[in-house]
Amino acid sequence: MCAESGAPFPPSLPTLQQLSPAHARLCLGIERFCRGALGLAPGSRLVLALSGGADSTALALLMRLLAPRLTLSLFALSVDHQLRPESAADARHVAALCRWLGIPCRVRGKDVAACARGWGCGLEDAGRKVRYALLEEERKAVNADWIVLGHHAGDLAEDVLLRLTRGAGWPGLAGMAAKDEGRRLLRPLLFTEPEALRGLLRALGILWREDASNQDRTFRRNRLRHAVLPQLRRENPALDRSIVTLHQLGELDGDFWEELLDAALDAHPWQEVEGDDGPGLLLPRALLRGLHPAARLRLYVRALRALGQASGAQGQARGATLLALDEALREGRANTYFQLPGGMEATLRRGSITFKKSAHSPRSRARPASVTPSTSRP
Amino acid sequence: MCAESGAPFPPSLPTLQQLSPAHARLCLGIERFCRGALGLAPGSRLVLALSGGADSTALALLMRLLAPRLTLSLFALSVDHQLRPESAADARHVAALCRWLGIPCRVRGKDVAACARGWGCGLEDAGRKVRYALLEEERKAVNADWIVLGHHAGDLAEDVLLRLTRGAGWPGLAGMAAKDEGRRLLRPLLFTEPEALRGLLRALGILWREDASNQDRTFRRNRLRHAVLPQLRRENPALDRSIVTLHQLGELDGDFWEELLDAALDAHPWQEVEGDDGPGLLLPRALLRGLHPAARLRLYVRALRALGQASGAQGQARGATLLALDEALREGRANTYFQLPGGMEATLRRGSITFKKSAHSPRSRARPASVTPSTSRP
Repeated sequence: MCAESGAPFPPSLPTLQQLSPAHARLCLGIERFCRGALGLAPGSRLVLALSGGADSTALALLMRLLAPRLTLSLFALSVDHQLRPESAADARHVAALCRWLGIPCRVRGKDVAACARGWGCGLEDAGRKVRYALLEEERKAVNADWIVLGHHAGDLAEDVLLRLTRGAGWPGLAGMAAKDEGRRLLRPLLFTEPEALRGLLRALGILWREDASNQDRTFRRNRLRHAVLPQLRRENPALDRSIVTLHQLGELDGDFWEELLDAALDAHPWQEVEGDDGPGLLLPRALLRGLHPAARLRLYVRALRALGQASGAQGQARGATLLALDEALREGRANTYFQLPGGMEATLRRGSITFKKSAHSPRSRARPASVTPSTSRP
Repeated sequence: MCAESGAPFPPSLPTLQQLSPAHARLCLGIERFCRGALGLAPGSRLVLALSGGADSTALALLMRLLAPRLTLSLFALSVDHQLRPESAADARHVAALCRWLGIPCRVRGKDVAACARGWGCGLEDAGRKVRYALLEEERKAVNADWIVLGHHAGDLAEDVLLRLTRGAGWPGLAGMAAKDEGRRLLRPLLFTEPEALRGLLRALGILWREDASNQDRTFRRNRLRHAVLPQLRRENPALDRSIVTLHQLGELDGDFWEELLDAALDAHPWQEVEGDDGPGLLLPRALLRGLHPAARLRLYVRALRALGQASGAQGQARGATLLALDEALREGRANTYFQLPGGMEATLRRGSITFKKSAHSPRSRARPASVTPSTSRP
């Protein structure tokens, strides 16, 4: 339902008591999720990322309804990507929504197309970079604890499919995090069905803006959303719920591997080393020998992440190379090195492994230079 | 390329030495895979499952080429599902192929449509059940060690997508096993691209039969194969390789969890109990308390499998219920029970969990009866 001039919002703010039982359950379920799984502390200050669409309109409404109960201070940021003629009207809708809800709101504009050209990446990626950068600026500006995004179960399903398609490991395949402490992000609606959010807005007579670019098939996410996922949902109407379950398992596994590696690194720390082209990390033999291959693979990823190398886009090439690296370690191969995406290199020497910036090859080489897999890959 | 009357096979058996370097590498890679990852022992006796299509024609050829090097004794079984008028001609092609390769071959027919009606399942499922039952009979009849199937990397990608769609956990999502010790199955071509197999056959002038039912969109696997996977491969031409990498990670994780649970059960065994409706398993408090939630979830699956409850088709409903069960355990809830698919029940009592056949409800109830998730699901 598109907002038009007139009255996109009811005369007064709804209260939880006014909601239907189903909608009240929806809200209270999200409250439980915030308190429990997200560990949202009383007194938290939040910056809501609002685009004007149904999802962020619902996000703003829900957080406003829960703010007294969770004692939250709310702020909002809307980013005008300046890609569509309607984007200014979208920003005005967000401003009106926030006035109605009593949430301080800032609108910032950025020429995303120009950024994309400057960075040499696509519009989708540039938009994402710009959004997250501005949200982080706003978070600091208002001294907030978290950035809150309106991603829901449909977005999660798309993200999982995207990661499967592009190449991902585990638990990476399980999709975007509900809580990302590193980037200070929360996604309280992540397990909620988008249709439930729209139903709530419709029941309360609250309008939202439709974003025509969501139909643009030049964006991969839209191709998956409109051409692939509907087919999968025909095969299993409960697909989104299945993916929520998969995600929860992924979160538990992520937590498990982190604890395991914390303990292993406590007992046998890695060593920072200085390479010709920058810092590196040496994983000593004692550390590596004490771990199962499954744990070592997660250790390699942790080491690469510590060296600033964690881009998901390189996931597949890196995954295959790390498997080959571990195979070489198990076979006791000596003085072997493996090229990794991002211009990194892993060197195997007397049972230890060192990760560092590669002195040997240009950044563009993603295939391992000296791999002869003998067992796991025909 | 369809086999017609005439000469579907070259005048003499090819040898490895005659192959192009690329095709020789393909063969030797599969040999390495057999020796290494599959641990195929010298002197093994194998029953090859042959349909007449490109994949099984390539399987038969490759195993015949490698038989002297791996000292294998080969047998073949072709199953005529009696679903298509051409199926008898397919079986004759397999018989001719085996005569040419010098592999003893049996052809058995079964009215799969009648089985499907009798079992109340679809043709795809009935065909699979019939095939595996007859292969196991043949394996015993010729005293073979393994049944060998011709599934390749394309089949693996379809299987992973199918599992994601239907609902799966991890490492279940990583797809069919290359080696299944329980069912005595090997899949030596699992990491090989189907186009490489066809290329080999074409280069040697060996014909195969096309199965028209592979185009039949009433079969879910075909819908995924023809409508969904090509779209994903357009997004990432290296999709199949990504999925092979994911699979290998899944195998390592599966091995890791099995070792971890072996050790946990050694220290604190579960107890067989007798319920009103059959045997059950009690997982004592000491066992459960000593495990991370991620490990407990795998323990629950292992317990259910031990009780004969491991059907993939119930994966999603079961996954969500097991998450809820573990949440209840963590919260210290007392005297709570959860309905599981397959008419099973999990009862939580003083920190222990008992799995057994449900006395409370009919088999059709898949939703948990007494779940009030408070943290992980809004």
